[in-house]
Amino acid sequence: MSLPDYGGQGWQDIVVTLDGPVAVVKLNRTKQRNTFTTQLQQDLVAAYGLFNLDDRVRAVVLTAEHTAPAFCSGADISSGWDGLWSKDDREQGQHTHRDIGGKATLAIFRCRKITIVAVNGHAVGVGVSALQLPCDFRFIWAGAKFALPFIRRGIAAEAASGYLLPRLLGYSRAVGILLSGSTYSPDSPLLQGLYHATFPNREDVFPAALAFAHELAANTSQTGVAWTKALLWRGADSIEGQHIIDSRGMIDLGTRGDAREGALAFKERRPVKFQDVLSKDLSDFVPWWTELDVQRRRTKL
Amino acid sequence: MSLPDYGGQGWQDIVVTLDGPVAVVKLNRTKQRNTFTTQLQQDLVAAYGLFNLDDRVRAVVLTAEHTAPAFCSGADISSGWDGLWSKDDREQGQHTHRDIGGKATLAIFRCRKITIVAVNGHAVGVGVSALQLPCDFRFIWAGAKFALPFIRRGIAAEAASGYLLPRLLGYSRAVGILLSGSTYSPDSPLLQGLYHATFPNREDVFPAALAFAHELAANTSQTGVAWTKALLWRGADSIEGQHIIDSRGMIDLGTRGDAREGALAFKERRPVKFQDVLSKDLSDFVPWWTELDVQRRRTKL
Amino acid sequence: MSLPDYGGQGWQDIVVTLDGPVAVVKLNRTKQRNTFTTQLQQDLVAAYGLFNLDDRVRAVVLTAEHTAPAFCSGADISSGWDGLWSKDDREQGQHTHRDIGGKATLAIFRCRKITIVAVNGHAVGVGVSALQLPCDFRFIWAGAKFALPFIRRGIAAEAASGYLLPRLLGYSRAVGILLSGSTYSPDSPLLQGLYHATFPNREDVFPAALAFAHELAANTSQTGVAWTKALLWRGADSIEGQHIIDSRGMIDLGTRGDAREGALAFKERRPVKFQDVLSKDLSDFVPWWTELDVQRRRTKL
Repeated sequence: MSLPDYGGQGWQDIVVTLDGPVAVVKLNRTKQRNTFTTQLQQDLVAAYGLFNLDDRVRAVVLTAEHTAPAFCSGADISSGWDGLWSKDDREQGQHTHRDIGGKATLAIFRCRKITIVAVNGHAVGVGVSALQLPCDFRFIWAGAKFALPFIRRGIAAEAASGYLLPRLLGYSRAVGILLSGSTYSPDSPLLQGLYHATFPNREDVFPAALAFAHELAANTSQTGVAWTKALLWRGADSIEGQHIIDSRGMIDLGTRGDAREGALAFKERRPVKFQDVLSKDLSDFVPWWTELDVQRRRTKL
Repeated sequence: MSLPDYGGQGWQDIVVTLDGPVAVVKLNRTKQRNTFTTQLQQDLVAAYGLFNLDDRVRAVVLTAEHTAPAFCSGADISSGWDGLWSKDDREQGQHTHRDIGGKATLAIFRCRKITIVAVNGHAVGVGVSALQLPCDFRFIWAGAKFALPFIRRGIAAEAASGYLLPRLLGYSRAVGILLSGSTYSPDSPLLQGLYHATFPNREDVFPAALAFAHELAANTSQTGVAWTKALLWRGADSIEGQHIIDSRGMIDLGTRGDAREGALAFKERRPVKFQDVLSKDLSDFVPWWTELDVQRRRTKL
Repeated sequence: MSLPDYGGQGWQDIVVTLDGPVAVVKLNRTKQRNTFTTQLQQDLVAAYGLFNLDDRVRAVVLTAEHTAPAFCSGADISSGWDGLWSKDDREQGQHTHRDIGGKATLAIFRCRKITIVAVNGHAVGVGVSALQLPCDFRFIWAGAKFALPFIRRGIAAEAASGYLLPRLLGYSRAVGILLSGSTYSPDSPLLQGLYHATFPNREDVFPAALAFAHELAANTSQTGVAWTKALLWRGADSIEGQHIIDSRGMIDLGTRGDAREGALAFKERRPVKFQDVLSKDLSDFVPWWTELDVQRRRTKL
């Protein structure tokens, strides 16, 4: 497969650029308050799918125009919810429906590279659940509004937010956020621990996130990152099981090029220059877990 | 089944009133420092069991007299622990015992409505584990003492506190609390994230919790709340599994009356008026999980 | 088995003393910045294995010389990683390798007594993951540096840190720490909740931890502690399952000597004097869980 040329992939609701080892995704519905659409979901799934496989990409930054009225003001429900159901959903039955927010969540969550979101505006609903929660790092503007108002709209925690939020922050805060459905500021005690960095000015969020991404891309091992993400999210359900898995990670990684380079650079007190890539240097012990197939299945002719 | 008249149910250790869509439970052992008894447990199990099924109830507030010497000073062990064992426990064997604190915890935890506790006094042991931890929101008086001193009394984490506390706050804080058994103030770093709101005056805790309950009752969907609680606590053990379940929630709820009303009210910038109720409008996809039967079983004649 | 004489066990990389009911372990590689070695791992596994079984021990404090250049500056990789692989690892295959950091983690984690670490110096890598994360309480010097820089060295989250860190602090902070690999101070927002107490002066950390250990040793039940640790870490995966298990704990402990003494001392407003010990007074309902066997297995002649 030839290397993707991100500028020319025919994206509609995002703009993608490759800035050295850092991929940048900018939401492209500024005038529509970056409301979430099926097209946006499809673009995100395609983009993060490519980042996941493209050895050139070591980190991804998702952001919006800092002058936009919102980072993402949720799904557009001005004409109701029916725009969310596909022809299949209606004809095949509810069991075939797959939430579009959740599809985006999964695409970001499954990306084996470092994922960062630079939230430089207000975010509501799926603008939090799908665009922020699955990222490794969240940078935010101090003036941004945050809300997951599902129960105030007649629906429930979507886009796997019922899975991610209690794990990210603990159940006390997650329940408080999701069962109030209220609007919070990034400095709310309820959101403590969610954001890696907060910035007083909207225009500073993305540049800081980009600089952070470049620092990580330059100094971290692609295989070490992928293993660490998997050990965190796909680890064993007992400490003994984790020890068996991470022992394998230790000796597999520890006998490859990046670990040799890491030790040598440390000894020589110089910057590292990691070269191992996922397409060639990832142990075939990975994945050790099984993943549920989330594809919809037709059950009628 | 006719609708319960909460005032006339013959409660002994609690007083129950229905304040519109909000049920209020007041502990009724003020002179005994609201110590926890088998009768109190039975009253709580009965009350929350009714709230769970009564469509009129959208939120529940549990509280005590703010002039009481304590919100709940734990189980009364002035005559030792033997009052806790039933005739069956002694005759049938330890395996048939069911902790009374845990019975209350489960009744509150399983209630599908919004549950709030207004802790307007000191709380110790089961006054924390059974009366606070299973609630969705905890409001507290800044001067209240907090202690889970089980290991200082010769017992261990009861009332499912070993399950709830690490999930609510993370293991670092939960272990710190339970393995010190010390007394803490609500502003202790160890309790950060546990309380939704703190009040300097005892008399302000319940009114604030009641107002909060009314705001949520007026503006949230009963089915949306029940789905969200289930997605949080009965969700899948993988993000893919959660996506499959919450997709079903999305299309089920999204094609019902509350979601239509939610979108319409949002568009018309007016308050919502939700009418869907659990007895009629909850998908029969719920429950998707299985629950262990915790009833005691006799194993001897 | 005769009681261990901790002073004379032939330790090499630690010094062990028994201070009444508190065992003290001091890292003994001060000049080598207490770097982690296979010998240190073996000493720790042996020591915590003894503490686990020795009824005299009620709490353990792990520390270092407060004048040392570091509490533990990680594994010594100045000559690369090859020192970590055993002859078996090389001859039998990667699947037989067991991470030495993880072996120490497991020994501390499995100890049924109260475990405390007094971090009176900088800690990096395995000096955090194996020496701090598995302990019940972490005391630290405010000036200590903290780093888990695995991905900056070409490896991944080892010593079960991928299991423990998200459980201790939640995934948001754990991911932030492990996927940045950066150096943090104990007062970093990212580390909130990790440390039970912080001290401005290095020399004060150990004495405070020791005093804390003595207070707990004097006033807590050995069996209550062991049950509570197990209920926290080996609990059921549902609240109903937890209720069934902790009900057994309640009646088992509640009908033994320590609970009688706990209630009596409480009534008489005097200090407790607990006498139940794990070797004689622990219910044979414990352990109710199964543990994966982590021993390496040879698969070639």
